[in-house]
Amino acid sequence: MSELKFDVAGIGNALVDVIANADDAFLSAQSIQKGGMTLIDADRADALYGAMGTAIESSGGSCANTIAGLASLGGTGAFFGKVKKDQLGDVFVHDIKTLGVAFPSKIATGGVPTGRCLVLVTPDAERSMSTFLGAAQNLTPDDIDADVIKASAVTYMEGYLWDQQGAKDAFLKAAKIAREAGRVVSLTLSDSFCVDRFRSEFRNLVKNEIDLLFANESELLSLYETTSFDDALAQLRKECKHAAVTRSANGAVILADGEAHKVAADKVEKVVDTTGAGDLFAAGFLYGFARQMSPVKCGQYGAMAAAEIISHYGPRPLVSLKELAAQKGL
Amino acid sequence: MSELKFDVAGIGNALVDVIANADDAFLSAQSIQKGGMTLIDADRADALYGAMGTAIESSGGSCANTIAGLASLGGTGAFFGKVKKDQLGDVFVHDIKTLGVAFPSKIATGGVPTGRCLVLVTPDAERSMSTFLGAAQNLTPDDIDADVIKASAVTYMEGYLWDQQGAKDAFLKAAKIAREAGRVVSLTLSDSFCVDRFRSEFRNLVKNEIDLLFANESELLSLYETTSFDDALAQLRKECKHAAVTRSANGAVILADGEAHKVAADKVEKVVDTTGAGDLFAAGFLYGFARQMSPVKCGQYGAMAAAEIISHYGPRPLVSLKELAAQKGL
Repeated sequence: MSELKFDVAGIGNALVDVIANADDAFLSAQSIQKGGMTLIDADRADALYGAMGTAIESSGGSCANTIAGLASLGGTGAFFGKVKKDQLGDVFVHDIKTLGVAFPSKIATGGVPTGRCLVLVTPDAERSMSTFLGAAQNLTPDDIDADVIKASAVTYMEGYLWDQQGAKDAFLKAAKIAREAGRVVSLTLSDSFCVDRFRSEFRNLVKNEIDLLFANESELLSLYETTSFDDALAQLRKECKHAAVTRSANGAVILADGEAHKVAADKVEKVVDTTGAGDLFAAGFLYGFARQMSPVKCGQYGAMAAAEIISHYGPRPLVSLKELAAQKGL
Repeated sequence: MSELKFDVAGIGNALVDVIANADDAFLSAQSIQKGGMTLIDADRADALYGAMGTAIESSGGSCANTIAGLASLGGTGAFFGKVKKDQLGDVFVHDIKTLGVAFPSKIATGGVPTGRCLVLVTPDAERSMSTFLGAAQNLTPDDIDADVIKASAVTYMEGYLWDQQGAKDAFLKAAKIAREAGRVVSLTLSDSFCVDRFRSEFRNLVKNEIDLLFANESELLSLYETTSFDDALAQLRKECKHAAVTRSANGAVILADGEAHKVAADKVEKVVDTTGAGDLFAAGFLYGFARQMSPVKCGQYGAMAAAEIISHYGPRPLVSLKELAAQKGL
């Protein structure tokens, strides 16, 4: 077995988030599915951006947020994703590299611009996302460096990759390399609409290829087409060795070798923007998991990281999560 | 006299802010003057950006922030400033236009990229700025549309313009047009180091050309080379008809026709990032001033807008200041 160099290698869509406040009436007028992620083309992205209010920009991308969070905790990470060499691409690469994350993917010098995700935050702090994938859609198996995957304790991938054949193939290639190297293969279901698009494939994946699954409650209910959380959990328990299921303010349930553990959510004074909550829970959990902490401790790291991210706009930590963990006695 | 169309026309550097947390040791290591604004070239900008941590991006530029704040209050504004047609230029133009602000300046299609300001926020919420002017340095008198200036109750300009001859000439051209049209000419001193660079010119301006001056305490002390706030205020009183001098948590002093009025600062639960505090005070003040409210009421609008901006990262309001003002009974 090759030497371990990274806690986690992540594969996901490399995106810059464009975040603005909006009310429910705006979402309706723009036919945006509240709480979901919808893929849009360049023209629609321009039109929606034109209609949106004052925005702030932040590096984003679900899996990239997770790897950034992991690095902020002091973990070692690598991220595979595609950007173009343009101003937003520079922002993405800066923000991931400044945390010490390895970024082995080649940067596109031509073609479509770096992808962006238009995030609308409603007064209830819920986020609704419209994603123009841009360069991110051109991730292919060639972008996956086998040596990095082999040297990572966990290879973690986002369900969103399933929307593009090349990215999906990159996922499957990486999963195969990781499995053959005796590493852990991990997946997040990404969002319930995504699960809806690829339910049978995700069911097969979870059953046969995934060692550690991340999902929130609605994604899990969608996966098993049930309205009963307990039923869904019981089914997942039979199919997947490790899982972390988040339930917003109600905390999380961790499944580990057939045992279920509850972890409470961390208290947050004011929830500002829930973008990245699941991504950062995964960051904290993976940090603990890669370092073989107990399931509950992994969950506590996740809860802490998620609480930081929802207290401000944007899906990347604005303080050192390592210092925050130390302050909280983790 | 031509018809009034705008409360305020602003002229300033069009910049996108790149905001990251840093500690005092980082500022020292990078030789950055704490609390000030330093002009840097492209190479230095790249090097500093490379050394900075995870950032968020937000439209910025002192005067542009003021006009954005004015528009968020329901005021009518125009802004003159130079960006290039690139991704950060698109961000700048989107964020100013989405508020209904007129943006008559031609957008550069070639040459240097849109300017940016690298903002480092220390744990005490103080911001230190390193600005790569980029396209902003190419503002010239040709960019000033006389009809817009004539149709604006106030023409408001930032002292930072003095760093570039073309921008300075644009300022002087606009001031002349405004004065001849019987409009109000207003200036912000921008920062105490800027005052230090151009003290005698600013002294002449204040005495002879400016109807309404904005300054903070340290800028005013620098202008009159004194350590006594009362002395500086007494001198300003003799030289300038209207002025608003901000003193951070100690509120502001408004000078109006020889009378001084004190306005308290609005309470803020947690000061996160002071970037834009002065800009937004000016926004609120100008909103009231253009609508001929009392000096104290103008100051209260300023205090309210400043309090919103320092409660989060970034120098642009994230909520409607008009709604906030209504909630506060202004």
